Amino acid sequence: MAKIGIAGASGYTGLELLRLLVNHPEAEIGFLTSETYPGESISKVFPSLSGFIDTKLSSIKSVSSNICDILFLALPHTTSMEKVPYFLKGHTKVIDLSADYRLKDPAIFKKWYSLPHKQTAILKEAVYGLPEIHREKIKSARLVANPGCYPTSITLALAPIVTEKWVDLSSIIIDSKSGISGAGRKGSLATQFSEVNEGISAYNIAAHRHTPEIEQELSALAKTNVQVSFSPHLVPITRGMLSTVYINLKHNLSTVKLVEHFKNFYKGEPFIRILPLGEYANSHFTVSSNFCDIGVQVDERNQRAIITSAIDNLIKGASGQAIQNMNLMLGISETTGLNFPGIFP
Amino acid sequence: MAKIGIAGASGYTGLELLRLLVNHPEAEIGFLTSETYPGESISKVFPSLSGFIDTKLSSIKSVSSNICDILFLALPHTTSMEKVPYFLKGHTKVIDLSADYRLKDPAIFKKWYSLPHKQTAILKEAVYGLPEIHREKIKSARLVANPGCYPTSITLALAPIVTEKWVDLSSIIIDSKSGISGAGRKGSLATQFSEVNEGISAYNIAAHRHTPEIEQELSALAKTNVQVSFSPHLVPITRGMLSTVYINLKHNLSTVKLVEHFKNFYKGEPFIRILPLGEYANSHFTVSSNFCDIGVQVDERNQRAIITSAIDNLIKGASGQAIQNMNLMLGISETTGLNFPGIFP
Amino acid sequence: MAKIGIAGASGYTGLELLRLLVNHPEAEIGFLTSETYPGESISKVFPSLSGFIDTKLSSIKSVSSNICDILFLALPHTTSMEKVPYFLKGHTKVIDLSADYRLKDPAIFKKWYSLPHKQTAILKEAVYGLPEIHREKIKSARLVANPGCYPTSITLALAPIVTEKWVDLSSIIIDSKSGISGAGRKGSLATQFSEVNEGISAYNIAAHRHTPEIEQELSALAKTNVQVSFSPHLVPITRGMLSTVYINLKHNLSTVKLVEHFKNFYKGEPFIRILPLGEYANSHFTVSSNFCDIGVQVDERNQRAIITSAIDNLIKGASGQAIQNMNLMLGISETTGLNFPGIFP
Amino acid sequence: MAKIGIAGASGYTGLELLRLLVNHPEAEIGFLTSETYPGESISKVFPSLSGFIDTKLSSIKSVSSNICDILFLALPHTTSMEKVPYFLKGHTKVIDLSADYRLKDPAIFKKWYSLPHKQTAILKEAVYGLPEIHREKIKSARLVANPGCYPTSITLALAPIVTEKWVDLSSIIIDSKSGISGAGRKGSLATQFSEVNEGISAYNIAAHRHTPEIEQELSALAKTNVQVSFSPHLVPITRGMLSTVYINLKHNLSTVKLVEHFKNFYKGEPFIRILPLGEYANSHFTVSSNFCDIGVQVDERNQRAIITSAIDNLIKGASGQAIQNMNLMLGISETTGLNFPGIFP
Repeated sequence: MAKIGIAGASGYTGLELLRLLVNHPEAEIGFLTSETYPGESISKVFPSLSGFIDTKLSSIKSVSSNICDILFLALPHTTSMEKVPYFLKGHTKVIDLSADYRLKDPAIFKKWYSLPHKQTAILKEAVYGLPEIHREKIKSARLVANPGCYPTSITLALAPIVTEKWVDLSSIIIDSKSGISGAGRKGSLATQFSEVNEGISAYNIAAHRHTPEIEQELSALAKTNVQVSFSPHLVPITRGMLSTVYINLKHNLSTVKLVEHFKNFYKGEPFIRILPLGEYANSHFTVSSNFCDIGVQVDERNQRAIITSAIDNLIKGASGQAIQNMNLMLGISETTGLNFPGIFP
Repeated sequence: MAKIGIAGASGYTGLELLRLLVNHPEAEIGFLTSETYPGESISKVFPSLSGFIDTKLSSIKSVSSNICDILFLALPHTTSMEKVPYFLKGHTKVIDLSADYRLKDPAIFKKWYSLPHKQTAILKEAVYGLPEIHREKIKSARLVANPGCYPTSITLALAPIVTEKWVDLSSIIIDSKSGISGAGRKGSLATQFSEVNEGISAYNIAAHRHTPEIEQELSALAKTNVQVSFSPHLVPITRGMLSTVYINLKHNLSTVKLVEHFKNFYKGEPFIRILPLGEYANSHFTVSSNFCDIGVQVDERNQRAIITSAIDNLIKGASGQAIQNMNLMLGISETTGLNFPGIFP
Repeated sequence: MAKIGIAGASGYTGLELLRLLVNHPEAEIGFLTSETYPGESISKVFPSLSGFIDTKLSSIKSVSSNICDILFLALPHTTSMEKVPYFLKGHTKVIDLSADYRLKDPAIFKKWYSLPHKQTAILKEAVYGLPEIHREKIKSARLVANPGCYPTSITLALAPIVTEKWVDLSSIIIDSKSGISGAGRKGSLATQFSEVNEGISAYNIAAHRHTPEIEQELSALAKTNVQVSFSPHLVPITRGMLSTVYINLKHNLSTVKLVEHFKNFYKGEPFIRILPLGEYANSHFTVSSNFCDIGVQVDERNQRAIITSAIDNLIKGASGQAIQNMNLMLGISETTGLNFPGIFP
Repeated sequence: MAKIGIAGASGYTGLELLRLLVNHPEAEIGFLTSETYPGESISKVFPSLSGFIDTKLSSIKSVSSNICDILFLALPHTTSMEKVPYFLKGHTKVIDLSADYRLKDPAIFKKWYSLPHKQTAILKEAVYGLPEIHREKIKSARLVANPGCYPTSITLALAPIVTEKWVDLSSIIIDSKSGISGAGRKGSLATQFSEVNEGISAYNIAAHRHTPEIEQELSALAKTNVQVSFSPHLVPITRGMLSTVYINLKHNLSTVKLVEHFKNFYKGEPFIRILPLGEYANSHFTVSSNFCDIGVQVDERNQRAIITSAIDNLIKGASGQAIQNMNLMLGISETTGLNFPGIFP
């Protein structure tokens, strides 16, 4: 039974960790922190948890460094950066859901986040927590940088082919659509119901901070520098993310063969489902599950592969993946506590 | 390990039974029927189940009567009526999610459903499957009539007080709001996305077929004939139901005392949560769970109790409650396979 | 051509006034104020207005008192109270969309708003701006207190019968459902998309500040003190409001006769539509229009009338009604600039 | 005053034509046809029109050929094809909202619609009704083929640059997102509320029938054969469409310059709004208006233009554009009856 702490439990990813962990057979929740509701009971903040957990929220400042086996940091970007060293010293393993330890190159971090990375030594040992790609390293990691939701859906869509000679790596275009919960739990005007309901909007085109994270992972896989055009969009659903990825083929290929290629690549992966021929990803079928559904299509008229990839942004795109990483770090079955179908409708 | 069959597996309540049963430790799914998709795999119909269950759908006509221990009938109203005798003969226990065996009085059935009840003998032994009220009878039942979603939310809201002398039983007014999934899975114009999205509408005011079901249960509890005004409304959410129930008090009462009364009444009930003083039911916090959340308020200016009651219409209002009944009929813990918090947001 | 000013133009009711006024043939928009975006162009704040109006927003402090013929105050409650005297002195007619001048009795205002009314002299001359009830007084008013959205939908539903001897005035129960835009345009956590989407919730049961406003109007109509139980609910749509109103009848009445009674009462009213026999109000059919649709039903089993009433909360429930009042005050046709059907779907 | 007929008035585009025409100063609605509700009043079918128009629906078979000046055909694809010759003979001008007369090349029609075009003579004289591109021809047309919603948003996004030497015409990728109303008004399972709500899905990737329509218009503009990859997506909103268009640049360009290029190209266009530098299209700001909002961005890291383009699919994408065409055909101001801002929120 592993002792678990969650820093930032009153946000959406914190809540989602809690919801999944209260039924996890190998985890025992220790402390929960929140700077917004210190002293409050977590079930007061989230009545959906009532009857399951009643822990009082404390400030992270009051938490000693060696109080748990696994610590999840569900903190705002840049806040995590400074907390990690303290807990690592206390022999706690850390899974950081922020972006702070995802980018290997401090120069790239500085460029996209407009501030220098202050923990470059620790950054070096952080493992990027995408189990389908870095499973072995995650098992022995002290610090896992849990991937962003966009990079998860996109890297999984492209991993099977960026390694191949028959794709044109300079042609990658990614058009992603995200539900609103990705913006986190805070009272901003931009994500008010009336502002975003009944609208589809593009934002941060070719300038989103997940771009370097995507490029880092694709470059590592392709063993060459890969650059992408990445356009995120906001869609009025609470949960769900769909990425549509375009890449030119150097010679034509049938959809049948490409589907097969994907199925082989992900053979045995418990949370990847390659859709049958002629079907495209629909985020609705992944909501509330840890699955990534991938649809594979070749536009034969234009010699181009079009891959669609769907996840629940708060589960496979955040807290579910974090627990998948925890399972690996604890040496238990990777699917423990995550092996359930999504809820439909 | 109980062998389970589901007739009508390709509807929403059928799917929800399946989703809950694939992770139920004491249930093994045997056959699934569908008249719409005979021969099709269930995971083709519902891709969310892909990786969990792949059973082929068959016609109910091809199913032998003694093939399973528990049979769920998730069939359209009036279709169930004729199927039940066949399976009861085969020593299968039946949980019927339709309205066919809910009304004890065949005359009332005929009045509201405009056709005579053809199985009045079997009707007599059917047990109304609201565990909080009929737990003991359910345990030994051969046939359970699983309650409707509206009657569940309403009976649970009123059960603690219709037995009391200090309420005016002639004053009950019920204003319910339901998500769209309650209309079932079929291609009707009335529940098209564009028709119902961004609208709130009343329907079947004072004429909804759940009225006699509500009145039957309240009358049995109150030991006198109770009539209610029941107004259902449609709201553009997929899942969720909120009932607001009004009843006059014969003398004034503080909200504090009424909350306490409700807490005592439901003491030990695993799926009823009486909300803290000053809080009202919000269906959002019950979605994807088997809970019924009840908010209690006295309008002291008008000497009236106003009870709000929220459920997930497909879980506590249908398939979750059906599994709760199954657990009772199997003699296992009532919460087996149902003991999880709702998903928020 | 009347010169118009709008104070608080960057909120939803301000925007809605603007949208309607840019196409109003007898209105010319003069100044617009906003304390949130002073110096900004209104079409920058609301890109939907781009190409129609480009006025710079100024602070209300910089506005002289006699600069326009009609001033709309779309300010937060209690802010209006202090601004009105200044503009009335400048011979501007004022339409106040806040609650500050709606309650005739300062003691009741103090009770529900927890602060004393500071302009009791002006309060006396304020006219409650529900044209269907107070049309003649509105025509000659200097100050119109524009009704709240709930009181509009409710008073219109009850006005035809609270004057009748055959209703029991002590039995009125009002169950209202509102879209989220009624909460205004501000960055609060409570109305974030992810918080309210896919949920139905009750709030302020028997304690909402619109209660005394409803009771004031019903009492005036009934010529006796009327008290009601009023329960507001929040529903995840942007615009739209549905009120379901229950009132006991002293003797039974057919629905046919009650529908006729309503049709007679509202004969000639341009913005009231009594629905055909057997139909209930659906907010969807009033969205983006100034109509109030009213459905009339008798629950003959229980000798009770159940009236459903639907409006667009931002139009008939706020800015449309304000322009209807403006038209009356200007002595032009009441429907000017408002005579369009709602948008469906 | 032009006499207007609408065939297929009980669908969404028919309703939208009606809604816009009841307030059009130069149009008088004559007959309305519907094969689904013959004999019914249109305001019974669409209560939002109640008080504005009450015309009885008739079958198209009963309509004589010369009864109106302008006939809108809002019929299913392939039904229009056969009706057009009859009405043209009667000296009626026809605006066809179906796809039947959009594709100039009968061979391409046959390829994508799997049936031969039976009216190739009439097809030759049909004018593609995108006023920003074909304004002069529309003015004198007898038959206008009103563009599809996707082709409208996409052609307007690309028209300013496919004519330029500095773009790579072989690199065009189009990722479109549509609201559900685009699927029309019919009771299909696929567009039921519960099926599509809370999901984002791709469909008909590289195989949608609007592809040849887009390619026809872009090829004509570019004066060379242009092929595109077109991926449509479904998003749970009622109205609205956003297209994100990617095209490689042969040399780098600043966003500032590209914005200016677009502004010059569309100078004086009444329904095109080029968004300010750094802003992207948001369908929410165009809903219920005839505007097309276009956001212009260069991804300078990848030498690629990314154009976002938003419309209301039922207005600029269908019925609004049809009325814009009607205005041109009648020789009246192009913006008559269409000159209003969208509704927000």
